[in-house]
Order: sequence, then C-alpha cells, then structure tokens
Amino acid sequence: MARKLVVKRGGKLGAPPGTLLHIGRHKPEHAAIRLIRYDAEDLQESVITDPSRYRPAQVPGQVSWLNVDGVADAGVIQALGGQFQLHPLVLEDVLNTDQRPKVEEYPGYLYIVLRMLQFDRERQQIQSEQVSLVLGGDFVLSFQERAGDVFDGVRERLRTGRRIRFMRSDYLAYALLDAVVDHYFEMLEYLGERVEELEDQIIASPGPDTLAQIHHYKREMLLLRKSIWPLRELLSRLTRDDSPLIADETRLYLRDVHDHVIHVMDSIDTIRELLVSLLDLYLSNVSKRTNEIMKVLTIFASLFMPLTFIAGVYGMNFDVMPELRWPWGYPAVMLLMLVIVLSLLVYFRRRRWL
Amino acid sequence: MARKLVVKRGGKLGAPPGTLLHIGRHKPEHAAIRLIRYDAEDLQESVITDPSRYRPAQVPGQVSWLNVDGVADAGVIQALGGQFQLHPLVLEDVLNTDQRPKVEEYPGYLYIVLRMLQFDRERQQIQSEQVSLVLGGDFVLSFQERAGDVFDGVRERLRTGRRIRFMRSDYLAYALLDAVVDHYFEMLEYLGERVEELEDQIIASPGPDTLAQIHHYKREMLLLRKSIWPLRELLSRLTRDDSPLIADETRLYLRDVHDHVIHVMDSIDTIRELLVSLLDLYLSNVSKRTNEIMKVLTIFASLFMPLTFIAGVYGMNFDVMPELRWPWGYPAVMLLMLVIVLSLLVYFRRRRWL
Amino acid sequence: MARKLVVKRGGKLGAPPGTLLHIGRHKPEHAAIRLIRYDAEDLQESVITDPSRYRPAQVPGQVSWLNVDGVADAGVIQALGGQFQLHPLVLEDVLNTDQRPKVEEYPGYLYIVLRMLQFDRERQQIQSEQVSLVLGGDFVLSFQERAGDVFDGVRERLRTGRRIRFMRSDYLAYALLDAVVDHYFEMLEYLGERVEELEDQIIASPGPDTLAQIHHYKREMLLLRKSIWPLRELLSRLTRDDSPLIADETRLYLRDVHDHVIHVMDSIDTIRELLVSLLDLYLSNVSKRTNEIMKVLTIFASLFMPLTFIAGVYGMNFDVMPELRWPWGYPAVMLLMLVIVLSLLVYFRRRRWL
Amino acid sequence: MARKLVVKRGGKLGAPPGTLLHIGRHKPEHAAIRLIRYDAEDLQESVITDPSRYRPAQVPGQVSWLNVDGVADAGVIQALGGQFQLHPLVLEDVLNTDQRPKVEEYPGYLYIVLRMLQFDRERQQIQSEQVSLVLGGDFVLSFQERAGDVFDGVRERLRTGRRIRFMRSDYLAYALLDAVVDHYFEMLEYLGERVEELEDQIIASPGPDTLAQIHHYKREMLLLRKSIWPLRELLSRLTRDDSPLIADETRLYLRDVHDHVIHVMDSIDTIRELLVSLLDLYLSNVSKRTNEIMKVLTIFASLFMPLTFIAGVYGMNFDVMPELRWPWGYPAVMLLMLVIVLSLLVYFRRRRWL
Amino acid sequence: MARKLVVKRGGKLGAPPGTLLHIGRHKPEHAAIRLIRYDAEDLQESVITDPSRYRPAQVPGQVSWLNVDGVADAGVIQALGGQFQLHPLVLEDVLNTDQRPKVEEYPGYLYIVLRMLQFDRERQQIQSEQVSLVLGGDFVLSFQERAGDVFDGVRERLRTGRRIRFMRSDYLAYALLDAVVDHYFEMLEYLGERVEELEDQIIASPGPDTLAQIHHYKREMLLLRKSIWPLRELLSRLTRDDSPLIADETRLYLRDVHDHVIHVMDSIDTIRELLVSLLDLYLSNVSKRTNEIMKVLTIFASLFMPLTFIAGVYGMNFDVMPELRWPWGYPAVMLLMLVIVLSLLVYFRRRRWL
Repeated sequence: MARKLVVKRGGKLGAPPGTLLHIGRHKPEHAAIRLIRYDAEDLQESVITDPSRYRPAQVPGQVSWLNVDGVADAGVIQALGGQFQLHPLVLEDVLNTDQRPKVEEYPGYLYIVLRMLQFDRERQQIQSEQVSLVLGGDFVLSFQERAGDVFDGVRERLRTGRRIRFMRSDYLAYALLDAVVDHYFEMLEYLGERVEELEDQIIASPGPDTLAQIHHYKREMLLLRKSIWPLRELLSRLTRDDSPLIADETRLYLRDVHDHVIHVMDSIDTIRELLVSLLDLYLSNVSKRTNEIMKVLTIFASLFMPLTFIAGVYGMNFDVMPELRWPWGYPAVMLLMLVIVLSLLVYFRRRRWL
Repeated sequence: MARKLVVKRGGKLGAPPGTLLHIGRHKPEHAAIRLIRYDAEDLQESVITDPSRYRPAQVPGQVSWLNVDGVADAGVIQALGGQFQLHPLVLEDVLNTDQRPKVEEYPGYLYIVLRMLQFDRERQQIQSEQVSLVLGGDFVLSFQERAGDVFDGVRERLRTGRRIRFMRSDYLAYALLDAVVDHYFEMLEYLGERVEELEDQIIASPGPDTLAQIHHYKREMLLLRKSIWPLRELLSRLTRDDSPLIADETRLYLRDVHDHVIHVMDSIDTIRELLVSLLDLYLSNVSKRTNEIMKVLTIFASLFMPLTFIAGVYGMNFDVMPELRWPWGYPAVMLLMLVIVLSLLVYFRRRRWL
Repeated sequence: MARKLVVKRGGKLGAPPGTLLHIGRHKPEHAAIRLIRYDAEDLQESVITDPSRYRPAQVPGQVSWLNVDGVADAGVIQALGGQFQLHPLVLEDVLNTDQRPKVEEYPGYLYIVLRMLQFDRERQQIQSEQVSLVLGGDFVLSFQERAGDVFDGVRERLRTGRRIRFMRSDYLAYALLDAVVDHYFEMLEYLGERVEELEDQIIASPGPDTLAQIHHYKREMLLLRKSIWPLRELLSRLTRDDSPLIADETRLYLRDVHDHVIHVMDSIDTIRELLVSLLDLYLSNVSKRTNEIMKVLTIFASLFMPLTFIAGVYGMNFDVMPELRWPWGYPAVMLLMLVIVLSLLVYFRRRRWL
Repeated sequence: MARKLVVKRGGKLGAPPGTLLHIGRHKPEHAAIRLIRYDAEDLQESVITDPSRYRPAQVPGQVSWLNVDGVADAGVIQALGGQFQLHPLVLEDVLNTDQRPKVEEYPGYLYIVLRMLQFDRERQQIQSEQVSLVLGGDFVLSFQERAGDVFDGVRERLRTGRRIRFMRSDYLAYALLDAVVDHYFEMLEYLGERVEELEDQIIASPGPDTLAQIHHYKREMLLLRKSIWPLRELLSRLTRDDSPLIADETRLYLRDVHDHVIHVMDSIDTIRELLVSLLDLYLSNVSKRTNEIMKVLTIFASLFMPLTFIAGVYGMNFDVMPELRWPWGYPAVMLLMLVIVLSLLVYFRRRRWL
Repeated sequence: MARKLVVKRGGKLGAPPGTLLHIGRHKPEHAAIRLIRYDAEDLQESVITDPSRYRPAQVPGQVSWLNVDGVADAGVIQALGGQFQLHPLVLEDVLNTDQRPKVEEYPGYLYIVLRMLQFDRERQQIQSEQVSLVLGGDFVLSFQERAGDVFDGVRERLRTGRRIRFMRSDYLAYALLDAVVDHYFEMLEYLGERVEELEDQIIASPGPDTLAQIHHYKREMLLLRKSIWPLRELLSRLTRDDSPLIADETRLYLRDVHDHVIHVMDSIDTIRELLVSLLDLYLSNVSKRTNEIMKVLTIFASLFMPLTFIAGVYGMNFDVMPELRWPWGYPAVMLLMLVIVLSLLVYFRRRRWL
C-alpha cells in the first residue's frame, strides 16, 4: 500500500496563504507548456518555454488553450499567473495537488479543479492526478501534474476542424471536463468486471486472498468516491450559475456531463454495496463451512468415543472379569458396538446432520 | 452472472459529444418503425421503412406516435432526428442505452428516458431495456432496444377508441409511462413471493444454496433500485414543471404515476430490508446450530474421555497393580465410571446444555 | 406467512387509468352504506341501499357522513362517484386497496387515503385495511374494506350531541383521522410489551424460536413503518395547506394529530432499533456460549489426552519394557499423571479459562 | 425492565379530543400549586389551594409564576385552564404526560412541553417527567408530574433579587428551560463515565454481564435521544419565531440553550456510536478467544491422537507381532513418537499457532 | 483512557446564565495577555498585566491583537469583557471550555469558538483546546486554555511585515482560523499513516492488541469528527453572512478555509470508513482461521479415531478372539487401517479440505 490516505504537506504548515509551494506525490519535473490557438479558420500549435514571453491572441475570436504538464515549478506557475492576472489563492491551489474538486468564480475567469483518474492494472490501484482548469473569455489554462493525459481526443477534434473549432472557450473547457469524466466509465467497467469475477469466485470456491481482495476494492471505491463525489456539485453549479463566461448552448452539454457524473456515482455506489454484500456472503460461507466441519468432527467423535471406551474396558487386566471368559463375549461386544453406532446414526439423521 | 454491472462503451471513449455510436447489450438489429396516427374520429396504423420519407400529419389535432424497435442503426436515428429537429445530445442518448432515467426540456419537446424492466423467470434475472420518449406538441416518439414491449394495452385502447383518442400527445406519453410503471408492480409481486418463499425456507430448513439465493436477490434489488430511483425525480418534475406541452388535466394523471413510483420504491426498500433481515436470520441460525453441535461434541467428549482414561489405566501391564488382583476391582471401577458419568450429567444439566 | 409483501394486481395490468377494478385481499362483499346527517340541533341515521337514490341535504349547515363498508362492488362506488362528481382517479384509488397514504386536492373536495391497522393477537400479525376519506364542503365520505372499524367513538359523540355536532365536515374528517391514529398507539403498546418480554427472555434464557420471533417482529415493524410513514407528510400538508375546506380552528386539531403521528413514528423507530439491538444481544450471547462450551471441551480434552496416552504406553505388550517390572512403576506413573494434570490446571487458570 | 416503551393510554382510546383524562406512570396525587409573584422591587410567595380563587396581578409589570406539582387531578387543571383561558388541547396535553417535546403558539400565549430527565443511579435507569410551560405576557405556568424538580436554582435567584427580577416572563421561561437542559449534562457526564468504565472492562477482561450492560446503556441512550431530539427544533423555533411574547434580548439566551441542546445531542450520539463500537470490540474479542481456544484444543488433539494410536497398536494382543519381541522395540517406538511430536510442533510453529 | 467523554460542569449546575465560572480540564493558571498592535508601517508587542489598564489604539487604522493564554482566571476575563463591552454570555462561553464550535453575531463584534487540536504521539491521543476569537472593527481577541499554540507562523508574518500588515482585523482573524485548520491536516497525516500501518499488519499477521488499536483509533476519529464537523457551518456562515466586519476580499480567503475544512472532513470520513472495513477484515480473518484450525482438528480426529478404535478392539482380552490367533491377523489389521486412512483422505480432498 504505497499510496497515502492523506497527502503530506511538509514545509507548507504555517506558511501564509498564497505561498507557492508544491504539495504532491509526483516529484518536481520541468513544466512543459503547449499552446493551441484556434478559431473556425485557423489552428496553431506551439510550445512555450518562457511563460513570461507569452502574448495574448491578436485576432478577435481566437481561443487560446495553454496546457501545462508538471506543476512542481513554482516559478513557471507564478509567471503564468502574472500573465493572466490570477488570484494568489488560485496559484496556490494549482500547486497544491491535494485539492478537493471545486469550481470558484473570480472576476473574469472561473477556476475549476478536478481529478483525472486512471486505473493502474498492474498494481490494481487507482492513479489520481489533479487537473486545474482556468476558463477565461478567450482562453483556457489546464494544469496537470505529469505528462500523459486523456485529452488527445480533444486535440484531435481541434486539429480536424470539427464543431469544437466554431465554439468558444467555454465549449473547450466542457470538452476537457467531458474527456475526464468519460474516462471514469472505462475505469468503472474494469472495476465492475473485477468485482464480478470476485463474486463468481466466492460462490464457487474462495481462495486464500479473496478477503484481502474484497478489502482492497472496497478501499479503492472509497477513494474513488471521495474524488468524484464533489464533481456533482461542481457541475450542478456550472449548469445553473449565471456566469457570463458560459453560453446557454454549452450549459446543455454541461448538463450532459452532470448526468454522466451522477451515473458514475450510481455505479460506484452499486459496486460498493455489492462489495459489502460480497463480504457478507464470504463470511456467511465461512460460517456455514465451519458449521459443516464441526458436524463431521462431532459425528466422528460421537461414533468412535463410546466404541473406543468399550474396547478399553475389555482391554483392562482385572483378574476377575467374567465376560472375558465367555465364549460369545467377543461377538456380543461387537454386536453392542454395532447397536450403539446405529442408534447414533439414527439420532444424527433425525437432527438432519446426515 | 452474464450481466455486467457497468456497460462497456468500447469505441465511444474520447469521441466528441453527439457522436452517434450505439452502446448497449443488444446486438444491432434493423430498426422497425411503426406509426400510429389518430384523433377522436380516426386512427391509421402504418409501418415506415424509410424514415426520411416521413411526413408530419396534415390534419390539425392529429397525434402521431412513432415507435422505433431497435436503436442500433445510427442512420435511422439520425434521419428521424433530422425530421423532428432533435438536438444531437438527444440522439446520442437514444443510442447509448445505458442512460440514467431523466427528463430534459428542449425547445419544442421534452426528452424522457426510463427503463422498461422485465423479470426473466428462467434465469431469475431482471431484463432491462432503455425506453426513450420524445414528447412534442402533436407527436410522441418512443425508442426501444428490441421488439416486444409492454405497450400493447395502450395500442388496444387507441384502437378501440377510448378516452385516450380524445386526448393530446401528453396523455399518450403519460399512458406509455404508466404502462412501464405498472409493469414494475408485476415484477415486484413475483420477487416478493420468491423472497417470502426464501423466508419460509430459512425458518424451516435452509438448503445449500440459500445463501447464494439471498445474495442473488439482494443484487437484483440493488440494480432494480438503481433503475427506478431516478424516476421519482423525473415524475416529480413532470408534475410540477410549467412546460406548455403538458396540460393540467394530464398532470393529475402524472401525479398518479408518481404515487405509483413512490409505492414501488417503498416496496423495493421493504424487500431489501427484509433480505438484510433474512441474512441476519440465516447467519444467526448457523451460529445457533454450530453452538448446538458443539454442545453435543463437548458432552460426548467430556463423558467418554475420563472413562476411556480409567479403562486405559487398568489396561496397563505393570507387574505390581494391586487393584487388578482384587476380586471386586472390576465392579468397583465400573461403579466409579457410573458415578463420574452421573456427576457430569448433573453438571451439564445445570449449565442447561441438556 | 399468509400475507403478501406486494399485493397482486391480477387483471388490472395494462388496464387504462380510471378502470374500476377492485384490487385487494378481502373478497368482494356487498357494500353496506350508512348515512349520518346532523347539525347542532338534529341527527338522523339511515341505511342507503341504492346509492343512485341518494339526495343531498336540504337544510343548509347540515353535514352528511356516508360510510361505505366494502369497496369490492365497483357499481356502488361508481354510482356514489356520480352523485358526488368524483374524479375517475379517485374512484380507482378507492377500489384499489393497496394505496400509499396520501392527500390529494381536487376542485371542491379533498381525497385522503390512509390505513387502519389492527393487531391480530392470535396470529401475531398486523391487519391492515385501507380507509378512503372524501371531504367536501358539507359531506364526508368514508370507504372501508370491511365491516368493523374504529369509528364507534365518533358515532357515539355525534349521537350524544357533543361539540362535534356544532362543527362542520372538516372537524368530522379530523375526528375520523384522529380515531385511526389513536388506534396505532394501542397496537404499539401491545407490540412494545411483546418486544420487552422478548428482551427479558433473551437476557434470561433464549428459547428455540427466539430468533424467529425477533425476525417476525422486525418484519411487522417494517410493514408498520411503511404504512404510517407517509401519514406525516399527509398531515403536515393538511395543516399547512390553504384549502378553504379546512377551518383554522380545525387546523389546530390536525396539528395535534400530526404530533401524534410523529410520536407514533418515534416509537416505531425506537422499537425497531431495540429489535436490532436484541438481535445483536442474541448473537453475542450465542458467541459467548459457544466460547464457553469450547473452553469446557478443550479443558477436558487437554487434561485426558496426555493421561490416556501414558496409560496406553504402559498398556503396550513389548517383551522388554523395564518400567513394567519395577515395583514402584505403577505409583510413579500415577504421580506423573497427577503432575501433568496440576500443571495444566495452573496453565488454564493463568489463561483465565477456569 | 419495569419501564414501558410505550405508555398505556387505557381509557383514553376513542375519547373525543380535549377530554381531560390523566395518562401517565405516576399515580394521581393531589396537585400542589405554588405562586411566586415578583417585579424588580418586590417578591411574594404563596400557596394556592383553590385555583378558581386565583386573581391576576394588580400591579403592572409584575410577573406571576404558578408552579403545579402533580397533574393527575383533572379538576384543578380545568380550573386553572379556565382562569388563563387555555385551549382544551393544551389542557389535554398537560394531563397526558406522554407528549413529545414541542412548542405551540396560541393567541396570547405559548405552550411548551419538554421532559425533565434524571438518572436513577440505583436502578441505572433514566427517570423521565413531563414539564409543561405556558408562557403569557405576564405569567408563566409550569406543570410537573411530581413534587421535586430542578428549579430550586431559579427560585433562589428570584429571591435574592438578581437580574432575573428585572426581566419579564419570557426570561423566566428561559431560565426554567435552561435549568432542565443544564441537568441533561449532569446525566450525560455520569453515563459517559459508566460507558468508559465498561470500555476499560472489555479491554481488560469482560465479565459475565458485560453484554447485558452494553445493551442496557444502548437502550437508555435510545430513549434519551428520543426525549431530547425534538428539543432542537423546539428551541430553534423559539429563537427564530417572531412571537411578540419573546424579547430580542431573551432570544440571545434561548440561542445559548439551543447550542447546549445541540451539544447534548452530539454527546449522546458520540456515546451511542461508542457503545456500538464497544459491542464490536466485545464480539471480536470473543471470536479471537474462541480462535485461541480452538488452537490449544487442536494442538493437544493433533499431538496426542497419533501417539495414543501407536500405543494402541502395540497394545494389541495378536499372537504374531514380531516388533513386540525385538529387544529395542520399545525404545524405537518411543523414538518414533518423539519424531512425530517434533514434526507436528514444527508444523504448528510454521502456521504461527505457537 | 484518561480523557472524559463529557466534561464535568461541577459547581456550574443551576447557576444563573452569565455566571463566570471556569469549566475545563486544565487547572487554573494565571492568564498571560500579549498585545500586538500593528498597521502597515508599524508593529508593537507588549505584555499586559492588568487588563483594566488596557487602552484602545489611538492611531486610526491600527489593529490590536490581544492573545490571552489561560482562561481560568474569571477576574481577568471579566475585566477584558468590560473593556470591550462583551455580552455576559460571551464571557461565560470563553470560560466554559467545553463549547461546540460556533459563530455568533453580536452588535459590533463576532464571537467565534473553535477547537485547536494536537495529537499527543506518546499517549496516541488527541489533545483538544478551546480557542475563542472575538473579531471587532479594529481588534481581535483570542483566548486559549494554555500557553503554547499554532499561531507562531502568524506572529512571524506580522513581524516580517508581509501582506497581513496591510489588511484589517478580519484578515487577522482569518489567519488565525487558517492556522488552526492547517494544523488539522498534520494530525490527519499522522493518523492516516498509523491506520495504514494497522492495515498492513492485519493483512500480514494481526498482533494481540490489533483489535484494541482499531477501537482506539475509531474512538479518536469519533471525537475528532465531533470537534471539526460544526466548523463547516461556522465557516459557511462567515463566508455567506453580510456582516460589515468582514471584507469581500477576506471572504475569498475564508472560502478557502471552508474548502480545507470540507477536505478535512472528507479525510476523517474516509479514515473512519477504512477503520470499519479494517474491523471487518480482522473479524473475517479470525473466522477464516478458526475455520482452518477446525479443519486440521477434524482431519486429525477423523483419521485417528477409527484407527485407535480398531487397535482398542484387538487389545481386548477376550479368551476367544480367533483373529488374534491368525498368523496374518496383525498385517491384515494394519492393511485395514491403511485403507481407512486412504478413504478418508480421498473424502477430505473431495470436500476441498486438503
């Protein structure tokens, strides 16, 4: 269990608000900034090495998407914050990668935090990464902890000149949100299958680590739920709020993402309840089997203890034991034993133990 | 367990919104479109093969009901969407048959998704099918995943010229909702009976698969609840909203369906709580029986172990064991054993084990 | 378990709304209609055989109470519905005796459904009967499934000319609601006593059917809760709504019934939680006893197994076993056994098993 | 368990509302009425024997506090009700001492019901008594079931001429509420200590009645919660409502009592959750111990059964058993036994049973 | 378990509201009052020995922060209360250190109570201390139970002349709140690590006190939750309220603290659910192991009991036992035993016990 339940904040404690210190699991890397600038007619892609040299778009109607991979370099974030006049609290939250998903309205832009989740099938663990979005009138900033994301589909659609090219920055922000949420489904599919395999296994024959696996998935679902739950409110607010940054048409699409999130939450809860039910099933099975084992033990012991005792009696070495001298003593004792065995078998059958 | 907890989205991942790709369990079939057009005086039924040739009703006041069986053919859906000017998100949801029940208002029409449930008694599993309804001013579109539905009653009432013929499209939509919800009751009746049989069985004598059955029904109820729960809000919104598409008189009927859904949810919750209670009962019974088995074992062992030991002592071959030579040694030992047995029986009786 | 969790709807499935088909447990009987017409000065009682001949009161200010016992005869209900111009959905709900308690406002009258509950002490089961009330400006209709009710107190007060005679129909409706709710208390008293007896029994010595009894009462409380819970909202709405049919003074009385219902719900929840706690207590007791039985078994086995083994060794028939020849061999072995027993007793005492 | 879960209503069933019949656990006593009349300058105490002779205060600004001990005498209550023009439902609730805490606004006065709780340390049970307060413009009526209360502090402050003498009747009502709620803390302190003792006991060594004690305290907390929970809403309403009877300054004090009640509820819930956790701890401990006992038993049995069997084999009396004749047969067998014992010990050590 | 679930109120019972009596765990110490007075240009620190000699700041725009360590000296609190014209209820709450976190608005100032929590790693217990803040237009009072706090970072920032020096008293109050809440994270990190260690331990091999540790952490989390939960509402109110004492800019920062508190609550709930899951895992493991132990016992007993019985039979001393005379009697019996053993092994293998 390498992952921590609560992320360490180390040197951050006691620091003033707005202090730009990176908090997170991923070691600092150099930030890679990619700019995609587009409108209906045109699209340019470039890489920005010095954020302080960034210049806003000159063409009215153009949308600029700056994607930052790696948020450990406080200087880069600070420089970008200066360019876009972001509030110090926003910059602090971008760097502190243990934020709870939320949306906050600032003058001129919306700040959205959410978590990009991927399931590491090798380690059977959810990998969680913080994605921060800043939605302005003609730009979207996206900050990720590491290179590698789920936005390739969006980039592809931008390049091939689809509808997204005719829309404004709010639609781009929607497309990014949608890509993140769509990925949750893939994860849940996989988890759902694993849990159903576990179910089959428990009913057929539980293995030695079944219990640990149930616990493991319960734990993953717990962390999954914690990461996704706040998205409901986030999207509900985006859909309802009257921020001028979001067009009515885009709200229809955001409502759709909202529905997806609720659907994801439903599935998470269903899997969670199923896991609880699986533990019950497992435990009941164990109890039932212990019961059956005890029956076998009790039947064996109850049958042989009286017999062994009788044999023991006639193995005693008293000088005077008349039965030993009787010629039919041996068969008589054997008959007695048989009667005892049969009586006990009848008794057990009556108690439905056999 | 053939059914998946989470439906696979396969190629859909990363696709732009509004992409018309079918997601679902049922393999693509050709879509069958049936049109029923009626008003108080007249009713025509026809089959539409080419949706692009569909023409709206010419007679004012006529209601058109298009029922589409099979939503795997994206072309057909697209063509219909064009005819009725449906939003791309609606078409996407019609094809993606893993929607959560919901109602969405679009300009000129309402889009309603719900699930038609049937209990497959052979496999003892709930069969779930997505039904999409589009309610316009003078038309209702209904999309089903497969042929075979619960709407025959509605069709019969349309043909025999009942009240429904004098009402508008909102009443038709109500009638379809009502038919789906009414069917839930039939399913619950059957499930309720099965659970009560299970209850009797647990109290009388649980079989080897009782546990798996409790789990199976818990699982079914979980999925049932997930499918029906969102209907509450859906109907509550239909009843309260001020959409001009729904007449006040029809709202009275929708309120009635709303009551039915709440009633269904109550029954589901009751059955669920009963199943939890049944598992407790089962487990407690197992514990009680294990306890009784242990008592029998302990009584047998406690009675015979001392006796066998005594017999063993006098079976030792020491040269010097004076008791063996006493003429009344054997009866004395037998008497001693009897005393021990009686004392133990008194002891067990006092502990209420006998 | 004769009672069904979910009431069968048989031929009702697929029928159009407003279809007057009786759904219920009680076989059709002929409906008996009793009319009590009163004002401050006068009171007349009569039996109505043909509902179509019913005539409204001629004297202004008179209140008419029609009580119908037996709702299986759809014709009678239909005729009454015609007389009082009731909505088809109301008539349908009156006949379908598996309604959830609710209040619905219609133009000119309120429709109230609730459940009259009685505890059948012989079968230890709750008997549930649907009571429908229609409250109009100068009339109250009450529909019951069977003869025999809890309204005799109300009738008596009407006849003896108490305050109720000076009040209007809303007060009569209140009095009927109050009589039904008051009866819940009697039932709960009895159930509370039974559960407390069960509690004493579990602490003293649980019998063989204690477990089944806990389950039985849990089940009854589950069904009880389901029947009474919706009454909270029903009465809360009656108290708050601004229906002109209910006078402000009467609202004070309805608030009182509302308090009673909340009190009843509190008691139900308390008994339910106590039953859960009783099952825990029962199970813990069983575990504790199994533990004690195991201790006895283990002590016996641990004491006698080594002894029996030693006796067995000296019962071997080897030609060369020097100890057997020693004159003090026998007492030495007996001493050894004593030492073993004492050591084990010390060991068990240290582990607190003795 | 002498206390009833649900209080009997005996003759009250079916009685019209407003019927003045006493319902309660405490046998009728003669009601003792004490009047304290005060303003900033003056204070008079007197005992009223005939309530019909009570006269309102002549001096404007004087506050009259009538405290009635014993509510079983319906005549006295009726007379007082006439003097202060109380609604029949109020009088009924004063007599029926099984009310749920509530506040009701009537024209000219507020009616408040709450429960005065004391913990009977001898019987380890909560003693509950209903206190009714009627708050008028210049008077407060308080009704208690029995003599003996928690109001002596209030009386003392009145007599010694503190701030309370300068305030109006609403402040007196507050002071009485505060005295009752303050007393809850004392009870919870004691209960908290008892539960912590139980905790220590379970961790150290659970006694034979530990289980019954956990259940007993769970039950008491259940009833405690039921009695106090409605106070939250009561005080919240008193604090928020715009009744002219309560001055803004007094609302500050009522808000303080409200905080106390929430604090009491928090503590109750904490103790309840702790009790649940204690039961888990107890049960887990029992399971762990059963497991350990089984280990001891299994080790003993597994060690000695093979040995006893071998000894038994060489105790057989076959004429031809060559080993018996070998001179080193006995030591060889003993060595074999030693090897078996050592192998088993190694096996158990590997399974961590030793 | 030295800590009390409910804090004793001793002499406080029955005292009038506003009585200044200290209630708390920490013995009275002399109160130490430190004053920091600052504006953008200047900062003075001083120690106040006689609170009655305190004088408000002369320079407009200066903020005064009075920090009081030790609230047991009622005289000091009373004197300060006089200086700042605090309501008696505020002073009472400052002294009574068992308050629930809350914010109360009084004319001219806000009164905030919260709990400063620290984890005593030696005793593995949460140490809780009440912190009261009074936020006025140009002053902040902070009351702590003991010397030693988490405010050193704030003091440092004040001295080094950072942004905080340019802000008003509301920002100072925010900074203090933030410092307290930030400290919760540190505690949770540590607790999270401990619980994960416990998890590893249970999966690998539970020790003898694992159970008590799970219970111990559950208990701590219970008390932690109780202390922090009310902060949500407190901060939500501070963020939303329209008190003129709090500037809009400061509300942004308070919203940030609010997010932190919700994050802390999420983590607490996750750890709590994990602890519940750990107990399940522990218990299931014990059941599984008991089951395995029983299997070993049953296999041993079932194998050796029949064998020992057969050996016993041929150890009987009957004169007439023909088998004993047969030359191949011994090997035949040994073969019989082998057959029995092999049959049983096959039987156990089939039941999957081997």
